[in-house]
Amino acid sequence: MITIAINGYGNLGRGVEKAISKNDDLELAVVFTRRDPSTVKTLGAPVAHVDTMAEWADTVDVCINCGGSATDLEEQGPAAARLFNTVDSFDTHSKIPTYFAAVDEAAKAAGHVSLISTGWDPGLFSMLRVLGDAVLPDGASTTFWGPGVSQGHSDAIRRIEGVVDARQYTLPVESTVHAVKNGEEVELTTRSMHTRACYVAAEEGADLERIKREIVEMPNYFADYDTTVTFISAEELAAEHSGLPHGGTVIRRGTTSEGVHESIGFELALESNPEFTGSVLTAMARAVARKAARGESGARTVFDVSLSELSAKTPEELRAHWL
Amino acid sequence: MITIAINGYGNLGRGVEKAISKNDDLELAVVFTRRDPSTVKTLGAPVAHVDTMAEWADTVDVCINCGGSATDLEEQGPAAARLFNTVDSFDTHSKIPTYFAAVDEAAKAAGHVSLISTGWDPGLFSMLRVLGDAVLPDGASTTFWGPGVSQGHSDAIRRIEGVVDARQYTLPVESTVHAVKNGEEVELTTRSMHTRACYVAAEEGADLERIKREIVEMPNYFADYDTTVTFISAEELAAEHSGLPHGGTVIRRGTTSEGVHESIGFELALESNPEFTGSVLTAMARAVARKAARGESGARTVFDVSLSELSAKTPEELRAHWL
Repeated sequence: MITIAINGYGNLGRGVEKAISKNDDLELAVVFTRRDPSTVKTLGAPVAHVDTMAEWADTVDVCINCGGSATDLEEQGPAAARLFNTVDSFDTHSKIPTYFAAVDEAAKAAGHVSLISTGWDPGLFSMLRVLGDAVLPDGASTTFWGPGVSQGHSDAIRRIEGVVDARQYTLPVESTVHAVKNGEEVELTTRSMHTRACYVAAEEGADLERIKREIVEMPNYFADYDTTVTFISAEELAAEHSGLPHGGTVIRRGTTSEGVHESIGFELALESNPEFTGSVLTAMARAVARKAARGESGARTVFDVSLSELSAKTPEELRAHWL
Repeated sequence: MITIAINGYGNLGRGVEKAISKNDDLELAVVFTRRDPSTVKTLGAPVAHVDTMAEWADTVDVCINCGGSATDLEEQGPAAARLFNTVDSFDTHSKIPTYFAAVDEAAKAAGHVSLISTGWDPGLFSMLRVLGDAVLPDGASTTFWGPGVSQGHSDAIRRIEGVVDARQYTLPVESTVHAVKNGEEVELTTRSMHTRACYVAAEEGADLERIKREIVEMPNYFADYDTTVTFISAEELAAEHSGLPHGGTVIRRGTTSEGVHESIGFELALESNPEFTGSVLTAMARAVARKAARGESGARTVFDVSLSELSAKTPEELRAHWL
């Protein structure tokens, strides 16, 4: 049995909790929270304040850091790596080398294994991009995201004056996806690849034209995209847009000889982004426990993990039935 | 530089040769053949008779066994593992555990690493099936093959009296693929998943009705499928059906909590089955060379390989640009 701690009990932490219950060889030992533990209701596991984490060092094999933001993880990652083997979903791409170095130092000093930046992107999508590049080096990879909810973009809309609530969907442009899959000439720009659809509940009497303008002209978030804004009631928003679906596609197209093309496609269609991300983190926790049991230490990424480390099945089972 | 030998120069061997030319860190040292070496024309590499293989033991890092049949590889695999690190595409599923044990013994005794049963199925499809099972344990995997040419089925038709030449395409039933992707209730049987389309050139005056009947009623190969037979001229067969396209889809659909479904899809669309298979074997040769350089020995499968072993890029590059 591999015992797991969940560090942070938001959407992702709850996703990990559900994922652990789907795996017979994994057991949830404790949930760490910054809140008053008596106010946190899990599906059964004990709850402890994050300040008491060190007391659990001997009972927990792997701590899954579910901090909701890059800021959380920059502190949380190295701190947890001193106490436990860890897994996290650090996703600020430009800071990954610095973060890796900080976690690597903490993990090595403590003799732990810490797998950073996993989930589905970074995570499974990264794995498939490297697989595509290794197998078809004379080629190009393209990633499309969505259809799915972007929480960062939804939050950006919510900060506009007069907005009560909002939900933003990122949508791949299907004709562009189709063209890339078929190797047709197509210009790949921010605008040609994705559109953004916003569902907004505004305060009564708010200036809807101004809100719409502020959204579609917002730099970085919306200005470079074709963006649609639909005003709906707060009730409809809650009723019809409460899910957190997401997904996307990685396409690798390459040439193996003059005029001969091969195409690799990887697609995720997720009804719950946090539950699926939690499922990936949970499988990675198994790989981390196995690496630690073999005496490895230091920071790792998804590129360092083999499928036999990830799978609950034995190497003999995998060879006999899964090749 | 990693130096490679190609053992067997048929379609697959030529695919490996082209793949090596696409990788700057790999170099083709020699092609081994059972034919008279003077009759074999490569793209530039020297050709040596297979009986002289042992003389190349010190110059070759990895030998890629491209034997065209399971019978070849059952002998070739352990024999080559005594002399070199090896990679092969052994694909007789029921014999994999026995074959693994034989290669493992030979490789361990000689201090070599031998990766067996790679390509795309077994190979990449196997990897994706294990990935799907590890991430979504409460779910099911379905594999569809095609559209693509099955050489075994084409050969079976060619053995029928009165047949000059034939080409058989395996086709996934699109409505069934669609239903599986969308989680709709659908019966998965041999007949509901794939159809077979046969293009046949017959001898002049041959009994076409008899040939057609012998095809569609052939046990194991065709009787359990909806099979179409189209008679065309030998010229048209050569002109329109000389390629070896293939591909397929692995779909993993799983449940992460009550009523919440997630779907992972992996799709290959290959204009040349042997060139793509050769590309996979070539990338795996890099992983084998790295494992050997670290002092590993014994038989391995795709489940034991990490993406950083497979990639030509350094771990630092991968973390900075590919996560």
